[in-house]
Formats: sequence, structure tokens, C-alpha cells
Amino acid sequence: MGISITKETKRLKTMLLHWSIAHSSFYNMLKVPEHQVAGHLAIDGKLGPLVDDSGRFYKPLQGDGRGNKELAFYESFSSDTRVPDHIRKYFPVCYGSQLLEASNGSGLLHHLVLQDIVSSHRNPSIMDVKIGSRTWYPEASDNYIQKCLEKDRRTTTVSLGFRIAGLQLYGGKESGYWRPGRKEVQSFTVYNVRSILRRFVSSNSSIGNENSDCSFAPSIYGGSAGILEQLLELKAWFEDQTIYHFHSCSLLILFDKESVSKGSASVPEIKLIDFAHVVEGKGVIDHNFLGGLCSLIKFVSDVLSDSKESSIKDCVESEKPGICTDNGNCQ
Amino acid sequence: MGISITKETKRLKTMLLHWSIAHSSFYNMLKVPEHQVAGHLAIDGKLGPLVDDSGRFYKPLQGDGRGNKELAFYESFSSDTRVPDHIRKYFPVCYGSQLLEASNGSGLLHHLVLQDIVSSHRNPSIMDVKIGSRTWYPEASDNYIQKCLEKDRRTTTVSLGFRIAGLQLYGGKESGYWRPGRKEVQSFTVYNVRSILRRFVSSNSSIGNENSDCSFAPSIYGGSAGILEQLLELKAWFEDQTIYHFHSCSLLILFDKESVSKGSASVPEIKLIDFAHVVEGKGVIDHNFLGGLCSLIKFVSDVLSDSKESSIKDCVESEKPGICTDNGNCQ
Repeated sequence: MGISITKETKRLKTMLLHWSIAHSSFYNMLKVPEHQVAGHLAIDGKLGPLVDDSGRFYKPLQGDGRGNKELAFYESFSSDTRVPDHIRKYFPVCYGSQLLEASNGSGLLHHLVLQDIVSSHRNPSIMDVKIGSRTWYPEASDNYIQKCLEKDRRTTTVSLGFRIAGLQLYGGKESGYWRPGRKEVQSFTVYNVRSILRRFVSSNSSIGNENSDCSFAPSIYGGSAGILEQLLELKAWFEDQTIYHFHSCSLLILFDKESVSKGSASVPEIKLIDFAHVVEGKGVIDHNFLGGLCSLIKFVSDVLSDSKESSIKDCVESEKPGICTDNGNCQ
Repeated sequence: MGISITKETKRLKTMLLHWSIAHSSFYNMLKVPEHQVAGHLAIDGKLGPLVDDSGRFYKPLQGDGRGNKELAFYESFSSDTRVPDHIRKYFPVCYGSQLLEASNGSGLLHHLVLQDIVSSHRNPSIMDVKIGSRTWYPEASDNYIQKCLEKDRRTTTVSLGFRIAGLQLYGGKESGYWRPGRKEVQSFTVYNVRSILRRFVSSNSSIGNENSDCSFAPSIYGGSAGILEQLLELKAWFEDQTIYHFHSCSLLILFDKESVSKGSASVPEIKLIDFAHVVEGKGVIDHNFLGGLCSLIKFVSDVLSDSKESSIKDCVESEKPGICTDNGNCQ
């Protein structure tokens, strides 16, 4: 059950339609996002999101109503005074919708116009983490629930309360990015996830293999502006907010490795994305999202504790999974 | 996957077998529990738990391996030094197992010997709250998962992250107990659950209907020894502990209404019960239990806030469900 679209938006959409048709040269500036780690890519004649040089991200409205649901969510969210300002910063800014030439050449199509979160980062390391131990919602059809349930059981969604849906890790100028394919990502086990949360904050350039330290953990995961503090701020909100249930949403976690390597101030970022399956909370907290978020927090805390309490050597992983003890250490 | 039974327990069981056969007159003292609100009752020739006058609760070991799993859990738990003392008090004391004449007349049967939690209460109001938005676990069979999923969707388990599995509310000397039948309990909606959490702490004697206040909320839910503080203490442990995943467990919440009415000190109690489906945590927190626990905490907090911030009148429920606002108030 989505949130209803207001008249104001319909008016805005019509206005934007006229504007975009009048400024068709604008399309020339659009391009395929360089750092998209999950979802459909706008390549090989396929439909996908586009970006421009001014920091905007154009996401085609999905046809089966999901696109309109996501637009409706952004409208509801942006005007909801119950959402505190310190929480708003975890959501991309939405500039409404716009008719654009679709990337698959199918003609004009409505696109959500969003803040391009990645544009302010030079060589971002990115993780797309889908939160929750179920991606379906009670009101969905039996078929949809069974389809989601099957994937939730196949991935770490059920066991961990979250799954990595995509990622790219920046090694350095020479090694570039490590970006595992969709099939590899979908087959990640609990052990792989723990490993990736360590490699994400590794100083090594050979980031694709497992011989990575986690020496950047204190500066990325830790500190007053670090990932852990941000996750805890979100958690406090989720313990109380009963406005929305965020099914199948992702947390995008990103930072610039080069800035950290050079010792310059770099603030790691967290943003919530993908709101096609948000439903009203109706006075109940989003316990599904909250449980998964707490699980992710525990994993991040474990990496941070290990990197602080022991030498870098202890943070380097062994090559085999081994046994994971209660404090999250794998032997 | 259960926790393995140690040799020590086997030895203990054999010893108890000999002891119980030698003291067969002991059986005469056993009786059907007066205040059991969920599970199988030992009446009409059925198999169920028994109690004695010394504060012990005898639970027949369920035949399909579940009984042994529960015994194995108690053994593992009682000897696990990672469990802090302030958490142990939320679990019944286990005195091993014992061969007893089963309540259904089928002969000698192993029983778990547990602390009878209710025995120290004179006229207890009790809620049995099954925690978690799923009662199944990933390693279970497809059939078992589908069966649980169906019930989880039919009850408030999926929507709320918990369901009330049974209850009795004490009204007073004249009105006695209100104990809804199993079918009624299984049909509880979100609205009913919110209503019962208010009625649980009502001073009224006509507790079976909805014209109840929630004026005992400050003394039962609130305060440093109240239900809310106890739930928060449990929550803090669940945010960190990765030893066990408690599937299909219940929180038993109980207090003596008469003591509160008379103004005498009465400490409301919380106990975790039913451990036949506990599995190893393997380094991951029990996000399923934690999410549901946080949802229950929010509900209890809402009742407490309402009772504190407004007059008793505002805490009295309206007769129709109405609309629930973000802060949990139903209009």
C-alpha cells in the first residue's frame, strides 16, 4: 500500500513535461552513471538511470506502479514535518520527476530526479546493503511473497538481516576498482559479508583478494562522524518512528579512499535509497528494518573493535572461513 | 540445529530416574498448573505440564526431539560463562530432567524440571508474548517453514514482530480472571494487542471489556524495576549477544494486581520461556528477536507515555479501532 500522490505533484509533473520538451538539448548532457553498483544499468540498450554534470540522478519510473510509489514516497517524506532534520540528511534530495528520453531508446519516459549521491566523491568505495530479514511486506500477493522469500533464504537476508546487493572497492590508481559481478554478489555467504566489511576499510591496493588489512576502520567506521555513529543515529530513529516501513530499501555506504590515504578530511556517507516498497507504518515501528540495521551495526562494531584492540596483523583474514566466535572473530 | 547433550546430563538423568522410581509417592503431590495461559494443558487425559507445592514446574519432553533440544539448551545456557548474571534472572532455573508419570496416563515420561515462575504470585495477571517476526529458522524444512509462515502472517507476528500467545488478566476478588480462549487469542489484531497492553495495567475490575483505564502503567510498566526497564536491559543484551537465536520463544510478563492495588511493593516479572527452537547464533545477533522486542518496547512505552502525560480519561479506550497516529495513540 503506497502513499497517495498529491495534486501538487501532478501539476509539477505536467510543468516539467513542458519544460523538458522545450529544452531537448538538455538530453545531450546525460550519461550512464560511472559508479552504479546495483540495479539495472543503462547499457547495451537497456533501461537504467542516467546522471548529468550538475549532480542529479535520473531514475526511470518503473512501469508496474513501483515508480509512482517511489515518487509518492519522496513527496510524502519531503513534506512530513515529523521527520527530524538530522534524519533527512540520510535521504537523497528529490527534485520531483521529469520526462526524458529513456536510455533504451523507447521514447519519452518519466524519471525521478534525485541528488546524485556519488558525484561529490572522486574514487568512491561503495556498498549497497539491502536491509531487513525479509524484503516482502504483509499486504503483498502470495506469489510476490514466495518469490522474495526464496531469494531472502538464498542470500544472507534471512540469516543476517541484510544482504550486500552490490559493491565496488577502490584499490588505488594502479589496481582501480574491484566490482564483483551480480551472480558473485548474490552468492555471498555470512563469511563473505564479514570479509567484505573488513576489505571495505583496507589500506591495501590489492583489494580483490582476501589478504587485506582493515587499518582504515578507525577513520571510516569509527569517530564522531564515522559510519558507526551514523548507523546508530539512524537506529535511534527507527526505534521510535512508526510513519514508514522500508521494505527492500538499501543503505548506500560510501567514502573516498584516496582522501583517507592522504590523511585529508573525508566524511564517509550513508544514504537510504530505493523506496518502491515503502508502506505506511500505522503506529508500529519498522522492526524488520531495525533488526537488520542492528545486525549490520554489530558487524561494523566487530571490525572496528578488532582494528582498535589488536594489531593490523590480527585484522588480516585467514584464507579459510574457520570458526566464528561469539565476538565475531573468525579463527 | 540444537546444542549437544553432555555426558554429565545423561548421568544426571539416570540418577534422577532411579531417584524418582524410589520415591513414587512424590507423584501424589503433582497437580495441573492453575495459571497456565498457553501451550497444552494437562486436563481431560491430555499430556501437559505439572507443578508441585515446592515451586517446581514439570514440563513433559516433547517427543519429536524438541524436548531434548530444550533440555540441551538449558544445559548449554546454565554452563555458559558468556551469559551475564543480570541476564540469567530472565530465565527460569532448570533442575535437570526427571522421569514422571505423564499426565495423560501413558506411563513414565521424561520431564524438564523448571522453576515454577508463577508460584510466587498470588493472583497473577500474565501475558505470554511470542517474540519475533518469524517463528521459523533458516535450517528448518520447507514444510515447517510454510506452516509457521502461514500462522505468522495470520497472527500479528509478521506485522508487529510479536504475538500474544495467551493471557489472563486478574480483575479482582469478585470478577476473578479474564482468560480469552485459544481461538480468540489467535485472532488478535494489532488493535487488540494495543488494547490488551493497556488493559493489562488497568485498575478496573471489569477487565474483560474495553472500558478500562491504564492507571497502573506507571507502577507496572514504569519505574526502575518496571517492565520497560527490564525489557530495555534484555534489549541491550540482544544487541550484542551472538550465542543463541531464540526462535519461537515467549516472554512471560506477570505481576500481582492485588499488591499494586494495596500499594504494597510488587515487582513485575519477565521471564523467557520455551526453548525447543533455539539454535546457535554463530557470530550473528538474533535480529529477529531483537526487532520484535523493540516493537514490544515501543508499545509498552506508548501506554506508559499516555498514562503519564494525560489524565486517566485519555487512557480509556474508545470502542472502535479508529486511526493510530505516529505516537501510537488511537483516535
